[in-house]
Amino acid sequence: MDERVITAMLPYFQVAFFNPSSPYAPAVAVRRAYEAAKESIARQIGGKADELVMTAGATESVNLAIHQAAGHVIVAATEHHSVLRAAQTKDHTILDVDEHGRVSLDHLRRAIRPDTELISIALANNEIGTIQPLRDIAAMIKEIRIERRAQGNSTRLLLHSDASQGVGQLDIHVARLGVDLLTLNAAKMYGPKQVGLLWASSQVVLRPLLAGGGQEHGVRSGTENVAGVIGFERALTLVSDRRESEVQRLETLKEAMRKELTAAFPDAVLSGHPKHQLAGHLHISFAHLDAERVLFALESRGVLVATGSACAANKGTRSHVLEAIGMSPEVADGSLRITFGHLSSSENTALASRAIIEEVKREYERMHR
Amino acid sequence: MDERVITAMLPYFQVAFFNPSSPYAPAVAVRRAYEAAKESIARQIGGKADELVMTAGATESVNLAIHQAAGHVIVAATEHHSVLRAAQTKDHTILDVDEHGRVSLDHLRRAIRPDTELISIALANNEIGTIQPLRDIAAMIKEIRIERRAQGNSTRLLLHSDASQGVGQLDIHVARLGVDLLTLNAAKMYGPKQVGLLWASSQVVLRPLLAGGGQEHGVRSGTENVAGVIGFERALTLVSDRRESEVQRLETLKEAMRKELTAAFPDAVLSGHPKHQLAGHLHISFAHLDAERVLFALESRGVLVATGSACAANKGTRSHVLEAIGMSPEVADGSLRITFGHLSSSENTALASRAIIEEVKREYERMHR
Repeated sequence: MDERVITAMLPYFQVAFFNPSSPYAPAVAVRRAYEAAKESIARQIGGKADELVMTAGATESVNLAIHQAAGHVIVAATEHHSVLRAAQTKDHTILDVDEHGRVSLDHLRRAIRPDTELISIALANNEIGTIQPLRDIAAMIKEIRIERRAQGNSTRLLLHSDASQGVGQLDIHVARLGVDLLTLNAAKMYGPKQVGLLWASSQVVLRPLLAGGGQEHGVRSGTENVAGVIGFERALTLVSDRRESEVQRLETLKEAMRKELTAAFPDAVLSGHPKHQLAGHLHISFAHLDAERVLFALESRGVLVATGSACAANKGTRSHVLEAIGMSPEVADGSLRITFGHLSSSENTALASRAIIEEVKREYERMHR
Repeated sequence: MDERVITAMLPYFQVAFFNPSSPYAPAVAVRRAYEAAKESIARQIGGKADELVMTAGATESVNLAIHQAAGHVIVAATEHHSVLRAAQTKDHTILDVDEHGRVSLDHLRRAIRPDTELISIALANNEIGTIQPLRDIAAMIKEIRIERRAQGNSTRLLLHSDASQGVGQLDIHVARLGVDLLTLNAAKMYGPKQVGLLWASSQVVLRPLLAGGGQEHGVRSGTENVAGVIGFERALTLVSDRRESEVQRLETLKEAMRKELTAAFPDAVLSGHPKHQLAGHLHISFAHLDAERVLFALESRGVLVATGSACAANKGTRSHVLEAIGMSPEVADGSLRITFGHLSSSENTALASRAIIEEVKREYERMHR
């Protein structure tokens, strides 16, 4: 977490811990700070404060977004488990992606049925960093809405996007993206864990997952997470303020590492869209390598990389994202997911590149011994 | 929040922010700290760590507990809104209480139908502090289970209790209470907001409210709230360690204020069970008084008291708890809910008593002018 985010949150653990629904003045001041934070968040994503539902993270936001659909739902094969599994509770279609992990507009159009109510496609993928053509998808959905109206089909068609991975690197203005529902997660922008939001256009009627005190306009009961939302606002403001320069900086670091690694291993496979990829994401696979052994060797040198996503990595299962882009198991098992952020510099990137090259070489040598 | 709780949490916002599902050593250390905190919490309530589901607070825990019931549910009329409203999504009975807010075993027995699956009764009430005869209820439920078995009725009958209000003042050992499901909330014990747990006996099969990465044994998806759970453990340990002496201390403070207030206003109505009431709770009503005016006058003198519960207070609605104990509106509207805690001392209690007496007198005089 960004130290400035922690500093912003601390008073709400201490002197300003009041329940914002309490009637006395210090609690009313907490309510005001909470609402002001939501106003600021809303302004930054181009929405209104009363269109925001603060949640315990992206998983809850995604579930809330999908829960409101009664009919058919379409999700991309590369979506996060929360999207895939929430969709599985509905009549659903899982949409294939191309070798770069992108959704095809043609395929999507063909998957949309007259009773399709919701399409959920992440702004950017958490493993390979591929950015989806969300605006084009939104434009197509707009056309289909017009067609439906002409045909007398009154079924709503909504677009939800989990933009957790894009925040701080991509434009997340809801009107420019063309979404009806948007999920964000504080922990993906140097904010606290377990703080998320679902933005829903005022025309969407959400169905609560939790019953209770009726907080968040009745959609999400439970005493408000004041410190968490203050932290969310501060984190979003901080990453938004330096977004352009940070994207440049991360792109440069990634490019430097990419050059070094592909020079050392010309056969390595780069995944993710060559152009439409998050600046901070580098996904590289070394066929037949045991990436886990490399990961542990690197770790002892202070270089922390991942294999699949954190969830999959922990369960010894193969990444559904790599499967969806058609990667063979022997390549997938040799994959490193390398992400750059705040703490990355040209110095530690150069050191990390050298360490990765040495450890991959060592592992290949061990295999051929 | 207790400063020591904040201190315990801080590293998990900083150097130990890793996702506990990541594979590298610093993340594995975070996983271990997370699991150790759950082990400690489980030990303190007499359960096992794998019977705990960490949630975003009592509201989510309560919803999770009630969600698993398919059949008939019974809840007391004085339950928190989260229990009442979650029960309303089921076939349910709302059980009346006596003038002290206690459930009658006879009434409960008569409300139990052959298809009743769940009874949810809070250990102690959040407004009037009445403690329920939970052990007696548990003993009766055990008898009914035996009867059901004899009758060939295989319907499960489970007891859930929201013990959020009792923690730090009452025994919350699950076996001694005799419950099958228990809800706790960190914010009610000087811990962080939006951190709760549901303990469920290993014989209870919970139905997830959220789909996703499959954390908390598949019952509650979403990256674990490591800092929050570390804070929960520390808060629980701290309040448990000094429980007996703190109960004595709070009882003495409350008794001192009770004596002063009832001496000044012999007609004031004390609510809550005279014997079975939380040590830190004093609920007093001044008939025909506008309690809100008194509340604001007190606030300007640094004395923070409440009227109804925080939720109800904010919405201008009358407390359903006071209605359930049969209090007339003109008495209910003159109610002050006074709670004692960490920051209460004999000095500030004496000052608060004097301030309350003066402001209630001033308000009565204004009314009769």
